[in-house]
Amino acid sequence: MGLIVQKFGGTSVGSVERILNVANRVIQEKENGHDIVVVVSAMGKTTDQLVSLAGEITSKPSKREMDMLLTTGEQVTISLLTMALQERGYEAVSYTGGQAGILTESRHGNARITNIEDDRISNDLAHGRIVVAAGFQGKDENGEITTLGRGGSDTTAVALAAALKADKCDIYTDVTGVYTTDPRYIQGARKLAGISYDEMLELANLGAGVLHPRAVEFAKNYQVALEVRSSMHDERGTLIEEESTLEENLIVKGIAFEDQVTRVSVCGLPNDLSTLSTIFTTLAENGVNVDIIIQSVTDKENASISFSVKTNDLEETIDVLETHKGKIKFKKIESEKGLSKVSIVGSGMVSNPGVAAGMFSVLAKEGIQVKMVSTSEIKVSTVVEQEDMVRAVEALHEAFELSGQKAPVR
Amino acid sequence: MGLIVQKFGGTSVGSVERILNVANRVIQEKENGHDIVVVVSAMGKTTDQLVSLAGEITSKPSKREMDMLLTTGEQVTISLLTMALQERGYEAVSYTGGQAGILTESRHGNARITNIEDDRISNDLAHGRIVVAAGFQGKDENGEITTLGRGGSDTTAVALAAALKADKCDIYTDVTGVYTTDPRYIQGARKLAGISYDEMLELANLGAGVLHPRAVEFAKNYQVALEVRSSMHDERGTLIEEESTLEENLIVKGIAFEDQVTRVSVCGLPNDLSTLSTIFTTLAENGVNVDIIIQSVTDKENASISFSVKTNDLEETIDVLETHKGKIKFKKIESEKGLSKVSIVGSGMVSNPGVAAGMFSVLAKEGIQVKMVSTSEIKVSTVVEQEDMVRAVEALHEAFELSGQKAPVR
Repeated sequence: MGLIVQKFGGTSVGSVERILNVANRVIQEKENGHDIVVVVSAMGKTTDQLVSLAGEITSKPSKREMDMLLTTGEQVTISLLTMALQERGYEAVSYTGGQAGILTESRHGNARITNIEDDRISNDLAHGRIVVAAGFQGKDENGEITTLGRGGSDTTAVALAAALKADKCDIYTDVTGVYTTDPRYIQGARKLAGISYDEMLELANLGAGVLHPRAVEFAKNYQVALEVRSSMHDERGTLIEEESTLEENLIVKGIAFEDQVTRVSVCGLPNDLSTLSTIFTTLAENGVNVDIIIQSVTDKENASISFSVKTNDLEETIDVLETHKGKIKFKKIESEKGLSKVSIVGSGMVSNPGVAAGMFSVLAKEGIQVKMVSTSEIKVSTVVEQEDMVRAVEALHEAFELSGQKAPVR
Repeated sequence: MGLIVQKFGGTSVGSVERILNVANRVIQEKENGHDIVVVVSAMGKTTDQLVSLAGEITSKPSKREMDMLLTTGEQVTISLLTMALQERGYEAVSYTGGQAGILTESRHGNARITNIEDDRISNDLAHGRIVVAAGFQGKDENGEITTLGRGGSDTTAVALAAALKADKCDIYTDVTGVYTTDPRYIQGARKLAGISYDEMLELANLGAGVLHPRAVEFAKNYQVALEVRSSMHDERGTLIEEESTLEENLIVKGIAFEDQVTRVSVCGLPNDLSTLSTIFTTLAENGVNVDIIIQSVTDKENASISFSVKTNDLEETIDVLETHKGKIKFKKIESEKGLSKVSIVGSGMVSNPGVAAGMFSVLAKEGIQVKMVSTSEIKVSTVVEQEDMVRAVEALHEAFELSGQKAPVR
């Protein structure tokens, strides 16, 4: 017996039928003897429809009014789900973000949670009630309605779990868990029984939308045990928690990859202290997102800096650099499209210096050229030709023993 | 220059196009130099759609969750209208009922307003902002979302006008004002320039939905000047205010009528003090709404009581009486269907004792039999055969000089 926070996304509550299905899930855990707080998103396409209504009125709606508009979405879901639970004979109560005590900064559209006032929910739980809270939303100190931005409902669930000291936060989604790599592309991709917060953060772009990185960070900071699981199928998902508590200790946990990568090289730069800062400050100020960065000094006077961007951003990147040529003082720009990024992720590699080397050997054996390399404590990223991407992932998946006939049993 | 509260109902904000039209109305008065508070309802059929969603889940939704669900309707409208005003370059801000400071009893579905905290709106007005508030909704002292029940948005508008000491409260609707009688049935029905609160209350069933009696009572208690006017046509509507301020002083202001009336007579009752109370308490406790009541004593031992009910309620009325026959102690029940009620309304009749007599003469001259009569200080109601209803109204409309080629000019 404990407290479980359950989060159901927009697809899981996309129709009355699915809301009734969610009610079943909630009741199942309640009947297992747990206290339950449920966090829900807006129904399916509701948010899109509201955005479109606003779009008929103005092309630049104020963020405050968009928050006012969009938060109605979750408010509809919480009331309907609560009715469904009451209809089944359970005591339940719905709360908007503000009523649930989610206090945020006074910033609309992308506010951060500053505090959780959990008295009200704690009192309901003490009386055996199921609490249904609206995800994605909160209020500021003036009672203004705010939203948490992308991944907001995940963050609400994790924040409530942290504040209420929940035993667990279950993130119900349309996939069954976190996989060693993307099962849509790689045969043999296997669902992981467990993964650490840091690994999950590095793998965030795997199976996009499974869990927002911000929620993972929040969970890490407050040591909230997460489980990503399916709202449709009744099976164990993937546990996300601290390293030490994980049973499965593979050196490499998963392989992330993405295509549409372009390498940009800025050559003939002055070899002084401010060069790096000037280039990347300029790019950031102009909204260009840069991924891998590599600096090399070819002689005493000249330096080259290479970085990767999304191929879609290439044109803008070059525009920004050319516009600020006087300040950056480069001689020329080179670029190479048609690349991909392939990364191996695993906290085991910190204590295993040979992991990067092992990755390069595998790729070399496959005849795959590595264009760029970047390493962190738990990740090694390589940039390769786009046409080599899937082959690289398959070879690495096999070499690091990630493939399996069946998911490991907990 | 003053403060105007404008209220627009669901039809007036039923589409994006109509919301843009409402924005024009608001801007027009703002440009006339007034401070503006706008109160809006949910868009057109939104409330019905939400009720239907709830109906798919449960046949007996809790009132609290219905309030949670339905209040999203107005919240969508306030944000869209505010965006429309901002798009036109005006400073505007939207508030839910609770944010607007509408405090209510802790009762869901039909809460009464207990207080208005107007600091926030006053501050916005002082800064030149247009305030857009959600009608129909409020919050209780625990921050629970409540609704005001039928006519709620009218009540919100009047309550805000009272609290803010507005110069005027304009109720925009789909008719152009209050008429001497129902123009859909009676040719020559004429829009009134002005009418008193009491007269409006008595005429409330004329042009159903023009203005909820509860809002009129509120306006009377706080002396808020109302104007009922069209959201589509740019013309003066009907002013509703205190007697003394009215320019037009007809003895009879309007003629109300309704069909589907049935007379019920309970005969052979014991002639004692508790008989009246027993009958009508029993009917009320069983949800039967009774309109006109007439008591007559035929001899020392026996009394008869007649009353009118809606024809639809006849069967239930008889059931209730028969079930409680032992307690009420009547000998028999008689009923007569196919009747109508025709009433003349006007505060002038208090000081004109001949008005009722005049009414009876007109009906007699038309050969119309009066089945029941009931009088109040400003109203005389008669029950006549349904087939005589329109003829009775036409004759009275003519006799009391209500017909006019054109609406009186203010």
